[in-house]
Amino acid sequence: MSPKITTELLKQLRQVMKSPRYVQEPVQAYIVPSGDAHQSEYIAPCDCRRAFISGFDGSAGTAIVTEQHAAMWTDGRYFLQAAHQMDNNWTLMKMGLKDTPTQEDWLVSVLPEGSKVGVDPFIIPADQWKRMSKALRSAGHDLVPVKENLIDTIWTDCPQRPCKPLITLDLSYTGVSWRDKIVALRSKMAERKVLWFVVTALDEVAWLFNLRGSDVEYNPVFFAYAVIGMNTIRLFIDGDRLMDPAVREHLQLDSTLEPEFKIQVMPYGSILSELQAVAAGLSPKEKVWLSDKASYALTEAIPKAYRYVTPYTPICIAKAVKNASETEGMRRAHVKDAVALCELFNWLEKEVVPKGTVTEIIAADKAEEFRSQQKDFVELSFATISSTGPNGAIIHYKPVPETNRTLSVNEIYLLDSGAQYKDGTTDVTRTMHFGTPSAYEKECFTYVLKGHIAVSAAIFPNGTKGHLLDSFARSALWDCGLDYLHGTGHGVGSFLNVHEGPCGISYKTFADEPLEAGMIVSDEPGYYEDGSFGIRIENVVLVIPAETKYNFKNRGSLTFEPLTLVPIQTKMIDVNLLTEKECNWVNDYHQKCREVVGAELERQGRHEALQWLIRETEPLIRVQ
Amino acid sequence: MSPKITTELLKQLRQVMKSPRYVQEPVQAYIVPSGDAHQSEYIAPCDCRRAFISGFDGSAGTAIVTEQHAAMWTDGRYFLQAAHQMDNNWTLMKMGLKDTPTQEDWLVSVLPEGSKVGVDPFIIPADQWKRMSKALRSAGHDLVPVKENLIDTIWTDCPQRPCKPLITLDLSYTGVSWRDKIVALRSKMAERKVLWFVVTALDEVAWLFNLRGSDVEYNPVFFAYAVIGMNTIRLFIDGDRLMDPAVREHLQLDSTLEPEFKIQVMPYGSILSELQAVAAGLSPKEKVWLSDKASYALTEAIPKAYRYVTPYTPICIAKAVKNASETEGMRRAHVKDAVALCELFNWLEKEVVPKGTVTEIIAADKAEEFRSQQKDFVELSFATISSTGPNGAIIHYKPVPETNRTLSVNEIYLLDSGAQYKDGTTDVTRTMHFGTPSAYEKECFTYVLKGHIAVSAAIFPNGTKGHLLDSFARSALWDCGLDYLHGTGHGVGSFLNVHEGPCGISYKTFADEPLEAGMIVSDEPGYYEDGSFGIRIENVVLVIPAETKYNFKNRGSLTFEPLTLVPIQTKMIDVNLLTEKECNWVNDYHQKCREVVGAELERQGRHEALQWLIRETEPLIRVQ
Repeated sequence: MSPKITTELLKQLRQVMKSPRYVQEPVQAYIVPSGDAHQSEYIAPCDCRRAFISGFDGSAGTAIVTEQHAAMWTDGRYFLQAAHQMDNNWTLMKMGLKDTPTQEDWLVSVLPEGSKVGVDPFIIPADQWKRMSKALRSAGHDLVPVKENLIDTIWTDCPQRPCKPLITLDLSYTGVSWRDKIVALRSKMAERKVLWFVVTALDEVAWLFNLRGSDVEYNPVFFAYAVIGMNTIRLFIDGDRLMDPAVREHLQLDSTLEPEFKIQVMPYGSILSELQAVAAGLSPKEKVWLSDKASYALTEAIPKAYRYVTPYTPICIAKAVKNASETEGMRRAHVKDAVALCELFNWLEKEVVPKGTVTEIIAADKAEEFRSQQKDFVELSFATISSTGPNGAIIHYKPVPETNRTLSVNEIYLLDSGAQYKDGTTDVTRTMHFGTPSAYEKECFTYVLKGHIAVSAAIFPNGTKGHLLDSFARSALWDCGLDYLHGTGHGVGSFLNVHEGPCGISYKTFADEPLEAGMIVSDEPGYYEDGSFGIRIENVVLVIPAETKYNFKNRGSLTFEPLTLVPIQTKMIDVNLLTEKECNWVNDYHQKCREVVGAELERQGRHEALQWLIRETEPLIRVQ
Repeated sequence: MSPKITTELLKQLRQVMKSPRYVQEPVQAYIVPSGDAHQSEYIAPCDCRRAFISGFDGSAGTAIVTEQHAAMWTDGRYFLQAAHQMDNNWTLMKMGLKDTPTQEDWLVSVLPEGSKVGVDPFIIPADQWKRMSKALRSAGHDLVPVKENLIDTIWTDCPQRPCKPLITLDLSYTGVSWRDKIVALRSKMAERKVLWFVVTALDEVAWLFNLRGSDVEYNPVFFAYAVIGMNTIRLFIDGDRLMDPAVREHLQLDSTLEPEFKIQVMPYGSILSELQAVAAGLSPKEKVWLSDKASYALTEAIPKAYRYVTPYTPICIAKAVKNASETEGMRRAHVKDAVALCELFNWLEKEVVPKGTVTEIIAADKAEEFRSQQKDFVELSFATISSTGPNGAIIHYKPVPETNRTLSVNEIYLLDSGAQYKDGTTDVTRTMHFGTPSAYEKECFTYVLKGHIAVSAAIFPNGTKGHLLDSFARSALWDCGLDYLHGTGHGVGSFLNVHEGPCGISYKTFADEPLEAGMIVSDEPGYYEDGSFGIRIENVVLVIPAETKYNFKNRGSLTFEPLTLVPIQTKMIDVNLLTEKECNWVNDYHQKCREVVGAELERQGRHEALQWLIRETEPLIRVQ
């Protein structure tokens, strides 16, 4: 990787920072955050502005350019990558290290008195604007919104904003019609006494209208906003996508409908002026509901007295609790995904062991090939992490030609991958050895497995927040002085984003919502030894009611059911470290893999993979 | 209990709320919080103003009186008690119930436009003032400080503020001289670039100067403030307590000292004017360090630009990590405490079983009697919870004549008690049966024990916060659908408050500081069945380094060592529910009780209690 030369670009940016054509008054600093106007985790190429100006294309980072300086804040995952990708116009600010200043402190230290700091008000979330604006103001500077994105003014070959066709999902997939979702949303709005709700997150728009898109890689979403009133529905979306008869039919655009279900379609770019018009029509006590992650531009369009802001929207919470149709879809998707992985692992064993010609990239491609053979396959749900040996210790690794390693019988192989099917989203990690693992490797793998089981088999009261389960996943590792430096699980969408709120399992997530039956999260403890190997065991699990002997205060209990049904390599397990209960868990799990996935392999006539599955699901025998 | 008649008192209060003698402008509402000027958990009789005006004397509650209304906010522990103690001038606001308004919302709903809400600025913590003031201002009202406490103006027989003699603690108890503590504090101040530190919590003043008092029941503290500069020490304290030659010697008041260690003694009441004088002398960038729990009055004395406010003070954090002398003192105190409890339990078995004449109050008194026979005993560390049968299910129960029950062979008995010794503070809960417990009682007890052991034996990385261990205590209960509705542990002082920050073990405590070796907390899971019984098993435990097989990232590991050494009644344990590891834990623990406490019982010639200890520490035998 050679760094991007940014001298000319920075010169141009510094010019537009002072140009009356773009800014009312010159700005002495310009902030380029990572996100898009919807605060998405994954973004479209046209939104990769920070990568364009700096060369650094990791998933997290904020660039700030002043007249003299250019600085990039990113976290520990990306220190090396950012250092490689950026030329020496840039200073790397290593977040999390003690001596690294915050963006605010740094700005205050380098700016001349009374400076203006510019930012695109659509890209910065309202809560972040508030924090930064306050810090700058107290040091005598001003954070100012710059309407035109200054990167876009110098990005001459900026790709177009994607505007791909939409996919309609019928009731057999969604379980609930978009009309009924609107009714439920309006009832939540009535409860909170708000008259309007602004949908800003892309997956929330997609979920609400039972539509999917492909504007952003891995995330089946499309660029749109929606504004829901008690009697009106406005959908802000571009292109001729709504000319598709299937979409028109789905949204009943040409039907005679009760007015409160009539969807008004408006241009994507008109959201701000329409919101301003809504705001102008408000009387006292009429409120507009927004997420605190909505952009500063849209939040500011509603005068403060009329705003009702919450960290999680009612759509985010409703979307997290999957109904029976979604759950069944997720089950189907996971069985198909397991079929693909059985094929892959069987193929790997045949190729790696005798030939040694399979690289991380080849393995990842082969995984995609097997998945794409399955019904309703749409795309991958994230970039496949296919890593062997020391690459496995890089938690967010993605194989590229420069790092591509060949799988061998001497190293541990870690595959973290998943797909979008029309009926569900998958995300699974398996760690395996094609030769003979060392006693130490087996020991570490078994501790990770114990942690995985401790979460998966946990029984806990209704209303428990996921972060209270995180330590269960670490206890066996902690007992031996080991640990892993990431959370244990994240929410998973239903043919939607592979990472979604508002629930999760992490020592960090204290703002998570309580777990309830129907929610779906991942369970993925790991152990990583820098320079040697990485181990992670990940299933997607469904929150289900648990039967318990007693029922304290009538609260009811919950537990998890694994949706992922892919064998866990028994060769890696030190059976003597398992308790009887843990050993039974593995055997029961494998029995279920054999039955459910075996039947599907049989149905699809994949006999060799079926033989592999049967071999890999032989019961463990624990010597007393 | 008959309610206190408050009609006349409320009339008087409403008069002074309008009297120009006490308020600059009339206030339409007056807030009476629970606390004292130091935000203490336990308060002196003269500070029980909320109890005086309302009759409700629980440990938590806030009264608000307006021209028309009188309302009391308290939590679930006190709904019944408050309802009994207050007459019908008062409306009970049940905190935690969905329909109960917050104090701010209620005020906004009942106050006429543009009202003034008064509060004593010494009693309200700065963080609370900020929140309430903001809410009131946004509704057009004003929170105003009322200098003279309005309750005190009508409380004609208000007891005097206590001013009891001081106890000096020498190095053998404290391990560090007050001079060295000042040096360490000044180095923390230099690190944070602050010039002044204001000590407002009573236990922090006591700890800093290695002094103890008895101004507040159960807490060996005295009314005082301190202001520490880089070259000055000011101690604000009343009475002739500093005439005591031992205290003068201890503080070196009459010695020739380097000026930076010369203590200037000032009247308790002069803290505000002295702080204002300090503030007046500050130049830009000179900061004063305060806790965010310091009173609004003291916080406001320092202009905002000069304030450095943190949730935990450096004294709070230093105090929590016990040094070798303190740890040894705590060990000694716990052995003496165990001696007293062995005597008590032996005596109870002899009295309860054949005679049935022991009440909860008699048992509590007897416990105090045995404790008071021990060396360096000072007082109890909290009101003894002595409860049998259904009373055991009331978590904060204290026996009074109206509720006093007789111990019997048919009910579970729960004793939660502790003492202040000059060398340490104890807090221990044991649950026992004097007859034959039912299978169900044993089952519940055993789950609680499993939770107790899970925390006590946990190994976790250095830097782990206590709240991450809370679920370990609940896991066995959760598996059967059971739980308890309180945290698992609190910090414990060293001959200081039995509850202290900044660490703890609770699902609620997300603001806790990381555990480190030398910290001392309680481990006290429980199970309570309303109307039937209560079970709790509590040890005080010391955080110690753990030896582990590996050492990830060189972080080191921690675990707990029980300081409490009182047998856990084996009759209550269902051995078949224990794992081998748990069974060994109990046997090892009992072996240590027998050795350490046995030797002390022997030394004190308490042979009958020694026989009881030996019987109660017979090893459990687990049938495979």
